[in-house]
Amino acid sequence: MSRFLKKRSKKTGMGPGSLVHIGKINMDRTSIKLIDYNEDTFSEKAVKNIEEAIPFKDAPTVTWININGIHDNSVIEDVGRIFGIHPLILEDVMNTDQRPKTEDFEKYIFIVLKMLSFDEKEKEIRSEQVSLIVGPNFVISLQEREGDVFDYVRERLRKGKGRIRKSGNDYLAYSLIDAIVDHYFIILEKIGEYIEDLEEDVLNNPSPETTKVLHKLKKEMIILRKSVWPLRELLNSLQRSESPMISKSTNVYLRDVYDHTIQIIDTIENYRDMSAGLVDLYLSSISNRMNEVMKVLTIIATIFIPLTFIVGVYGMNFEYMPEIHWTWSYFVVWMIMIAVGVSMFIYFRRKKWL
Amino acid sequence: MSRFLKKRSKKTGMGPGSLVHIGKINMDRTSIKLIDYNEDTFSEKAVKNIEEAIPFKDAPTVTWININGIHDNSVIEDVGRIFGIHPLILEDVMNTDQRPKTEDFEKYIFIVLKMLSFDEKEKEIRSEQVSLIVGPNFVISLQEREGDVFDYVRERLRKGKGRIRKSGNDYLAYSLIDAIVDHYFIILEKIGEYIEDLEEDVLNNPSPETTKVLHKLKKEMIILRKSVWPLRELLNSLQRSESPMISKSTNVYLRDVYDHTIQIIDTIENYRDMSAGLVDLYLSSISNRMNEVMKVLTIIATIFIPLTFIVGVYGMNFEYMPEIHWTWSYFVVWMIMIAVGVSMFIYFRRKKWL
Amino acid sequence: MSRFLKKRSKKTGMGPGSLVHIGKINMDRTSIKLIDYNEDTFSEKAVKNIEEAIPFKDAPTVTWININGIHDNSVIEDVGRIFGIHPLILEDVMNTDQRPKTEDFEKYIFIVLKMLSFDEKEKEIRSEQVSLIVGPNFVISLQEREGDVFDYVRERLRKGKGRIRKSGNDYLAYSLIDAIVDHYFIILEKIGEYIEDLEEDVLNNPSPETTKVLHKLKKEMIILRKSVWPLRELLNSLQRSESPMISKSTNVYLRDVYDHTIQIIDTIENYRDMSAGLVDLYLSSISNRMNEVMKVLTIIATIFIPLTFIVGVYGMNFEYMPEIHWTWSYFVVWMIMIAVGVSMFIYFRRKKWL
Amino acid sequence: MSRFLKKRSKKTGMGPGSLVHIGKINMDRTSIKLIDYNEDTFSEKAVKNIEEAIPFKDAPTVTWININGIHDNSVIEDVGRIFGIHPLILEDVMNTDQRPKTEDFEKYIFIVLKMLSFDEKEKEIRSEQVSLIVGPNFVISLQEREGDVFDYVRERLRKGKGRIRKSGNDYLAYSLIDAIVDHYFIILEKIGEYIEDLEEDVLNNPSPETTKVLHKLKKEMIILRKSVWPLRELLNSLQRSESPMISKSTNVYLRDVYDHTIQIIDTIENYRDMSAGLVDLYLSSISNRMNEVMKVLTIIATIFIPLTFIVGVYGMNFEYMPEIHWTWSYFVVWMIMIAVGVSMFIYFRRKKWL
Amino acid sequence: MSRFLKKRSKKTGMGPGSLVHIGKINMDRTSIKLIDYNEDTFSEKAVKNIEEAIPFKDAPTVTWININGIHDNSVIEDVGRIFGIHPLILEDVMNTDQRPKTEDFEKYIFIVLKMLSFDEKEKEIRSEQVSLIVGPNFVISLQEREGDVFDYVRERLRKGKGRIRKSGNDYLAYSLIDAIVDHYFIILEKIGEYIEDLEEDVLNNPSPETTKVLHKLKKEMIILRKSVWPLRELLNSLQRSESPMISKSTNVYLRDVYDHTIQIIDTIENYRDMSAGLVDLYLSSISNRMNEVMKVLTIIATIFIPLTFIVGVYGMNFEYMPEIHWTWSYFVVWMIMIAVGVSMFIYFRRKKWL
Repeated sequence: MSRFLKKRSKKTGMGPGSLVHIGKINMDRTSIKLIDYNEDTFSEKAVKNIEEAIPFKDAPTVTWININGIHDNSVIEDVGRIFGIHPLILEDVMNTDQRPKTEDFEKYIFIVLKMLSFDEKEKEIRSEQVSLIVGPNFVISLQEREGDVFDYVRERLRKGKGRIRKSGNDYLAYSLIDAIVDHYFIILEKIGEYIEDLEEDVLNNPSPETTKVLHKLKKEMIILRKSVWPLRELLNSLQRSESPMISKSTNVYLRDVYDHTIQIIDTIENYRDMSAGLVDLYLSSISNRMNEVMKVLTIIATIFIPLTFIVGVYGMNFEYMPEIHWTWSYFVVWMIMIAVGVSMFIYFRRKKWL
Repeated sequence: MSRFLKKRSKKTGMGPGSLVHIGKINMDRTSIKLIDYNEDTFSEKAVKNIEEAIPFKDAPTVTWININGIHDNSVIEDVGRIFGIHPLILEDVMNTDQRPKTEDFEKYIFIVLKMLSFDEKEKEIRSEQVSLIVGPNFVISLQEREGDVFDYVRERLRKGKGRIRKSGNDYLAYSLIDAIVDHYFIILEKIGEYIEDLEEDVLNNPSPETTKVLHKLKKEMIILRKSVWPLRELLNSLQRSESPMISKSTNVYLRDVYDHTIQIIDTIENYRDMSAGLVDLYLSSISNRMNEVMKVLTIIATIFIPLTFIVGVYGMNFEYMPEIHWTWSYFVVWMIMIAVGVSMFIYFRRKKWL
Repeated sequence: MSRFLKKRSKKTGMGPGSLVHIGKINMDRTSIKLIDYNEDTFSEKAVKNIEEAIPFKDAPTVTWININGIHDNSVIEDVGRIFGIHPLILEDVMNTDQRPKTEDFEKYIFIVLKMLSFDEKEKEIRSEQVSLIVGPNFVISLQEREGDVFDYVRERLRKGKGRIRKSGNDYLAYSLIDAIVDHYFIILEKIGEYIEDLEEDVLNNPSPETTKVLHKLKKEMIILRKSVWPLRELLNSLQRSESPMISKSTNVYLRDVYDHTIQIIDTIENYRDMSAGLVDLYLSSISNRMNEVMKVLTIIATIFIPLTFIVGVYGMNFEYMPEIHWTWSYFVVWMIMIAVGVSMFIYFRRKKWL
Repeated sequence: MSRFLKKRSKKTGMGPGSLVHIGKINMDRTSIKLIDYNEDTFSEKAVKNIEEAIPFKDAPTVTWININGIHDNSVIEDVGRIFGIHPLILEDVMNTDQRPKTEDFEKYIFIVLKMLSFDEKEKEIRSEQVSLIVGPNFVISLQEREGDVFDYVRERLRKGKGRIRKSGNDYLAYSLIDAIVDHYFIILEKIGEYIEDLEEDVLNNPSPETTKVLHKLKKEMIILRKSVWPLRELLNSLQRSESPMISKSTNVYLRDVYDHTIQIIDTIENYRDMSAGLVDLYLSSISNRMNEVMKVLTIIATIFIPLTFIVGVYGMNFEYMPEIHWTWSYFVVWMIMIAVGVSMFIYFRRKKWL
Repeated sequence: MSRFLKKRSKKTGMGPGSLVHIGKINMDRTSIKLIDYNEDTFSEKAVKNIEEAIPFKDAPTVTWININGIHDNSVIEDVGRIFGIHPLILEDVMNTDQRPKTEDFEKYIFIVLKMLSFDEKEKEIRSEQVSLIVGPNFVISLQEREGDVFDYVRERLRKGKGRIRKSGNDYLAYSLIDAIVDHYFIILEKIGEYIEDLEEDVLNNPSPETTKVLHKLKKEMIILRKSVWPLRELLNSLQRSESPMISKSTNVYLRDVYDHTIQIIDTIENYRDMSAGLVDLYLSSISNRMNEVMKVLTIIATIFIPLTFIVGVYGMNFEYMPEIHWTWSYFVVWMIMIAVGVSMFIYFRRKKWL
């Protein structure tokens, strides 16, 4: 499957808001986890279906419903029905080919993000879509599969460390976004190291294989950009949002993530420049190397061609070739040939062709 | 006919608003279909001429008049006369070389779009112009030929599925735009697969033919961009339009199409980057391959040239060449030649030229 | 004379508003034509000097004064004196190196445009400057030479076809601009065909000559852009102008020309992309072709070099070369040489070097 | 000294407003000229020090103080003290590495410009900084050395030609700016001619030397841009300035210089495109030429290599070579060789390799 | 460690505002220096811990606390506690991978800058992060290590030279920023000289090593841009800031630094253009040189190949070769060969291949 566009064809012709999962199915069953807390209390449990969350919906505590697996229509429909989410949003949740964006409805804010990981073996970026629905006192997070970068957030919630338990659900949403963005730095570090390795390679050992690796790197850069660029706009509009969902005090934190995003984008652009530079460097390296080979070889050939001509001359069978019969001819010819060879060699050296 | 600009010369010197068809004529006779509906009723019929639509014009039901074939002046003039459309708009309808755009008149909104299809055999994008005129309770859609991407919309109308029958003509217009934009994804999927095939080709089997294919791909990208880029502006101004033709509730849907358009543009830009990358990859591939050939061949030549010189030496006919008469000379010369050949081979190997 | 900047040196040091003609003089005498009309009446006559136009100046009818030839100071000065035009504007009229622009004075609007034609033989774009001065009920058009694209406008005026006789002088000005812009499409068509011819050439018959042709095409594109890009801004500011010279109803028409301009700019940009693509295509074509030549030739050489070595061996004159005396040696050597040649040929084939 | 950045190191660590001359000192002593005029009177004299200008400072006539030489601290300090100029401005005056800019103080406007000239021998652009201080009824112009483009302005002042004597000091400032900008056209003309010469050269006689010349041209373009681009902003902010220093009627003239600047920038950009095109053209020219050489030479070699093999065959000394003894062998071998040579030649021709 | 992104992994999963030092630790112990002054008094002392600064906090004099070493959590925490700084800001101070930025809190302004130095031996730019916290009457500056560009500021403070002692803490903050920005010019000068040296090298002595040097230069340019570009925005928002921390009179000075920044950015862009130009120049240089070598060598080979063929002909052993027995044959063959060689040489010369 193309990594730049997911198969949408099966959805062709369906009305807007139709719930069709687009993407690879990564797990069997949807699993739902529910965390409910305020400054004083904390409870965490796995629930079987979304209806168990109804009592928490209007409670004053902050409720975080984490849903792993978004391929099951019925679960998504339940979320829509119980929390009053617009069908177009539900459609977006199930379509894993979204561009990061935020949409501000009156009663909730919808945020789509890309959670990235770097497959060190394949040197490929893996992307997973995370949707956040931020309501008056709940946050619903929907992921494609088990495993995420939110463990540290859960830990802080459990231990009641830092501001998180004292703050509202907007701070929880911020923490989740921050966790995802923070993880981008890890990926950038790895790519940075990879680029430096490649640089070594290109300078010291350029091979046709390098071309493919550089082409692949370019593609990964495209994927990275695609996930990160829209974040800037997203965070910008979250900050300027006048939604009552987001309190003023959270804005400072959103600005902080925004700054991180700018820095990530800067780094990606620098990496792109670096990669482009590597391609140029590879091309000069390979051409320098080729030139060196061709030059030495051609020069060898060039020195011997006149010599071969000389020996050819005395291989002729004419009856009247006076030199043939002289005693020292053979020796003299050798001398001449050595002289020619050496002087050509010196000439090439002096011209810096060797 | 150029695919970037259609012949307009026959229109030279005519006043503005002159109705001249510009483009290829794709069908014999104009065919008109009329669908009339509200939440409760639905009727669908083919009509012979546009005048049969007059009774529906001011009826409270939503009327969708679909006209296939825009090369017939009289039909277009009838539309203008009966629905009160500005001559410049009628001119735009008949000129199939329009840029996608929207124009907001007081009594109707005019929208021009490109409906695309991908000719898999020729690997070419085919473009058809679709004009929409959205009046108070009617939508007129004008196409160049039979066959379109609207069948799913018709189906939903007939079956009364989803919101469509309950909503006004602005929702119908949205549905038509959405159907066209949705179809772009199908085309992008096909092009995406095509690019991946090409990538395989370029890496494993680059041939001069590939140059032409990549050049063609570049041209298709230009055509694709030309059709899609202006869409963003179009949808943006539709959303911000204060025309009474478009109700607030439809705006959410327009934003959805807008998001799709952004994603399509993103994907096209990524494809462009990919294609540019492919051209670079092709050039390195071909030069790597060429270098490999040249290197091996030159080395073979280079090894044999000094050897040929040696055998030349003993082909000379001097009377006084002592070596000639020694018993082991021939054997020794062979030894020397093998030694020279092997040591050059080893030298080249060690220098990684082989 | 450079086609990118005209000789201005003769004007150096003159005060602003000095009337000096800059450009090539294209005709002997200035010729002036005067057309006066309203819905009911129409008169057309050639006048000797601009003073004959004074009676028409304040008449309620629309007066169009067309002046061919702008190199004669006295004519331009007369225009300035009689119609009250600012000296800087008169200076601009006579300097044929203007950038298309519009200036909004209280009593008139000044518009400079480039009328283009395509010299099919030289494949060069020819540019002529047209200035329009739009006053309360007159339009003065000033051109460099006889012959223009306004004949269709005159025809419509004479025949009283369309809106033109019923509308004011702003509609006349629009018609003149429209005639010029419409003519750009003709030029684009011709260039489009030219590019397609070139594409054929580059693919099937690339020659060093092609380089020059592509370079020339690039220059024509620069000239085209220079004339067309500023038009967008010009038409935009005409539309937004609050000058009483331009009535609301003309705005729809100006928007139409604006749309055409956008389309022309789009097409030029696509042509530029195409030309850049052609250069790349030429470079790969030529290098593919060169590679093909070099490869085949090098391979021929490479096959024969070892063979030549072998025959050289048996050309040596050693006394003790046992093979020399064997009966079948000659035949065997031939066999060996054929075997070596054929196996190298097969090897190269298998490696796809042939 | 680098032409892109002047030595500032000697100023390191000094407080803001310290008066240190940065740049090359171009003359011995500062010379000061004072012109005082209104519509009726005109006086012109050289003064020894700036204090002689005090009586003119508050007189109602327009006073133009032209200072050649800005390396003398005491002169600049006098200007500051007598006319009340901010130390940061005085610092800018003495630092000849300024970017063109304007600063609007309450009591005066400060303008920095670059006066350019083209050294035809070195094909280099020379730049001189000109500062203008425009006060209520005086203009102070400060230049690096004697000799400028203002002679025409002085002439017009002396002769009382045109508007200049009737207008205020803002018109004088405009005239000085206009004189500088007008001179850019002269430089552009010369560069244009130079580019055309280069184009001829590149097409007909490309040599390694051309590379250096094109590189130099690129650098001159960078210097030109650096001087001209900021002018647009400068003139824009002068026009929009609400300073009482600039009267409304002068605005029309400033717009005129602004238009010239836009045109100059356009031309520079076109020249840049042209230069980039020349580099591409040079590269294809040189590679076409090289290919031609290599092709012909390789083909000659390739034709003779098989022939040399054939003659080698009959140079072998085998006892049993039947052909050796036949009467017509020699003749037949010649025939074969000629046939081989000719047929290879024909083959290459047909393949269009020759 | 990558120079484009610092190791952040150790911070993964920590809550926002966690104090973790990111970067290289450059010194053992944090050292703190405190300078307190107003127009009349001045005191300077080293303090052991930040608490000694408490008495100065609310005093009316200006207090400058300079902290070298930011890796010690406790020191940074003290600063936060005593001066009431937001934890996110403290986190930013300790993370040396910040992008230059300013944040405007109600009670203080936070500014991050990069202090650069140029390692002449490695031709590398070294970067050190400097944070400024500007409160009501104090400035805290935090650096990574000992040694900075502020000595001149200290000197001016001690000597009471210039405005600095008479002005508030905003002027002190400006002076520090100005000192950093001024130092950029020194670095640009050095890089400028380095580029000119490189240019010489590329023109006169291009070697494969040059590729690596140019690649390195490109990387340094990326690092330079990364540090300087955000400055423009930073200074812009400082100028427009409505914070009571910054007085109106300081604005003139901020505008001055802003102008310097623009000039630095301009120069960096010019250097980038120059470097790109150098890469192109290197590539043409190397290819010109290679072409020259190949051409001469190939021509030598080509002249001798036909000659070798001729001598081969007369090395054949046919019984019936009439020329063999003629007396003058050998001489004639030599004549022919010389004629062929010379005429080929002349031909190549005339074709300008030599």
